[in-house]
Amino acid sequence: VNALTWLDGKPVANFVASSTDPLNRAIAYGDGLFETIAVVEGHARLLSLHLERLREGCRRLAIGLDDAALYRDINNVVSANREGVLKIIVARAGTERGYRAQIAAGSYRLLQFFPQMITRNFSESSSAILHLCRQRLSRQPALAGIKHLNRLEQVLARSEWSDSEIAEGLMLDTQGQVIEAVSSNIFFVRDGEVFTPSLQQCGVAGVMRRVVMEYLQIIVHEKNCTLDDLYGAQEVFITSSLRGIQPVVQLGCVHWSRGDVVITLQQQLQNFIFQSFALK
Amino acid sequence: VNALTWLDGKPVANFVASSTDPLNRAIAYGDGLFETIAVVEGHARLLSLHLERLREGCRRLAIGLDDAALYRDINNVVSANREGVLKIIVARAGTERGYRAQIAAGSYRLLQFFPQMITRNFSESSSAILHLCRQRLSRQPALAGIKHLNRLEQVLARSEWSDSEIAEGLMLDTQGQVIEAVSSNIFFVRDGEVFTPSLQQCGVAGVMRRVVMEYLQIIVHEKNCTLDDLYGAQEVFITSSLRGIQPVVQLGCVHWSRGDVVITLQQQLQNFIFQSFALK
Repeated sequence: VNALTWLDGKPVANFVASSTDPLNRAIAYGDGLFETIAVVEGHARLLSLHLERLREGCRRLAIGLDDAALYRDINNVVSANREGVLKIIVARAGTERGYRAQIAAGSYRLLQFFPQMITRNFSESSSAILHLCRQRLSRQPALAGIKHLNRLEQVLARSEWSDSEIAEGLMLDTQGQVIEAVSSNIFFVRDGEVFTPSLQQCGVAGVMRRVVMEYLQIIVHEKNCTLDDLYGAQEVFITSSLRGIQPVVQLGCVHWSRGDVVITLQQQLQNFIFQSFALK
Repeated sequence: VNALTWLDGKPVANFVASSTDPLNRAIAYGDGLFETIAVVEGHARLLSLHLERLREGCRRLAIGLDDAALYRDINNVVSANREGVLKIIVARAGTERGYRAQIAAGSYRLLQFFPQMITRNFSESSSAILHLCRQRLSRQPALAGIKHLNRLEQVLARSEWSDSEIAEGLMLDTQGQVIEAVSSNIFFVRDGEVFTPSLQQCGVAGVMRRVVMEYLQIIVHEKNCTLDDLYGAQEVFITSSLRGIQPVVQLGCVHWSRGDVVITLQQQLQNFIFQSFALK
C-alpha cells in the first residue's frame, strides 16, 4: 500500500517529490513526534486525545507547533480520505548541522494517509498471542510517555518474530519490569482489580490506554509490574488506537481466556466511541 | 550554510526536491546510521575507520548496505567538494506502515556535504570548557557504540547551554556513570595512566577514540568512570573526527591544564593523520 502524503498541508503524490529539507532533523536525529489515528467515515477517532498527547510531546521536547494549521491539515485530509489510518509526524525545523536546535524554529507537519478498513465493532476483536521480546526498553524519564521518533528499540523488537499468528511482542525494560507491547499498552486483571505498568521510565502512554484509565467505568492501578504479575493474572489485554481492547490468550506457554472484565470493557469502549463519534 | 545533498548518488540541490519515500523509516523511526567525516584536499579523513564503524552498525541493526555503491558515492562527492564535512546517512529501505522491517529491503544512502574549513594542525586545537549536562543517557546495550539515528538525548542535552564559550556537554548515564560528551568521547589521565569510559551500555564509539586507543603509542584502559574519577584526574581531553584531541580545561568549577600527555598525543595524532593522508 502506498501512502498518500501531505507536507505542511500540501499533498505529495506517493510520498515522493517532496523536500527532505523540512525533515532534516527528523531524519538526522528523530527530532520529532508522531500520532497514528483511525479515520472512520471521515472522522478522526479520538482526535482530541491524540492532539493532547502530541501537544504534551511538543512541550516536553520544546518543539513549536501551529495547532490551527495542524487542525486544518487534518480536516482537509479526512474530509477527502474517509477510511484508513492517518499518521501525523511533527518534526522540529532547522537545517544546520549539529544537535543544537534553533529556538523558535517551529516545526513541520507531515501527514500520511493509509487507506484501509478500520474496526468499528470493538467486541468483535480477535484475541492476541504475544511473543516475549528479548529486546529490552531502556529507561529514560525525559522521553517516557511521549510518542517520539526514536523507535529503534521497537524496530529491533518487531524483527524477532515473523509468525503471523503472533499479534504483538511484550517488552520488558532493562531492569526486567513489564512495560508495554511493541505498538500497544498492556493491562491485566488480578482478583478483580485492573493494573497497567507505570510509564515513568519508558513506554508510550497510548491514547486507548488513557481511554481505559479515564473514560470507562473501572479503576486502573498503575504499578511496577513483573512477568510474575502477568502470569498470576486472570485476564490480560492490550490496547491501541487501532485495535481497541484486545484480550491476550497466550504468552509463551502461559494461557489466559477472554474474561468478564475484558467483555465488559469492550462494551463500554463501544459506547464511548459511539458517543464521541455522535458528539462530533 | 546550506547543505549540498545526494540521495543514492544523485545530487539534490539544497537538500530540496528529493523524495521522502526512501527516507520513510529514517523519518518515522530513526531506522538508520550516520557518519560525519572531515574532508581535506579532496580526501575523506580516516575513511576506512568510518566505514568499518558504519558496517558494524549495519550488522548490528541488520541493515543491508551496498559497500561499492557507497564508496562510489563518496568518491564522487569528495572529488568535487574538497574541503568540508561529509555526512553519510544510511537508512533502512521500506515504505510500509509499522515497525516491521522488510528483510533484504536494503538501504538508501543519503550524503550531505557542508563546505567549511577543516583543522589540519591538531596541536593547535584550542582548549575546551565543558558543561555538565542534566540530561542523562539511557542504558541500551543493543544500541551502544554504534552511531544510529535515535539522537533525542543529544538534542535535549545540547539545548542546555547557549554560551559560545562552552565547547561541549559532558553526559552521564542514568546510573551516574560518565560516558561521553554530546558529540565527542572523553579521556582522562591519572597517575600517568590513560582511561576512557566503557561504552557497553551507551555512548558512541568514536573513530577518533579508536585512533587514540589503537593507533597512538599509549595504552588506554576502558573502565566504568565516575565524576570523581574526572575530578581527580591530572589531564582531561575530548576526541572527535572533527576536533581531533582537545584538552578540557574546565567542567563547572573544576579546572585542568593542557598537560604533557595531551601534547604528546596531539603530536602523535598529527603524524598518524599525515601518514594516513600520504598513504592514500
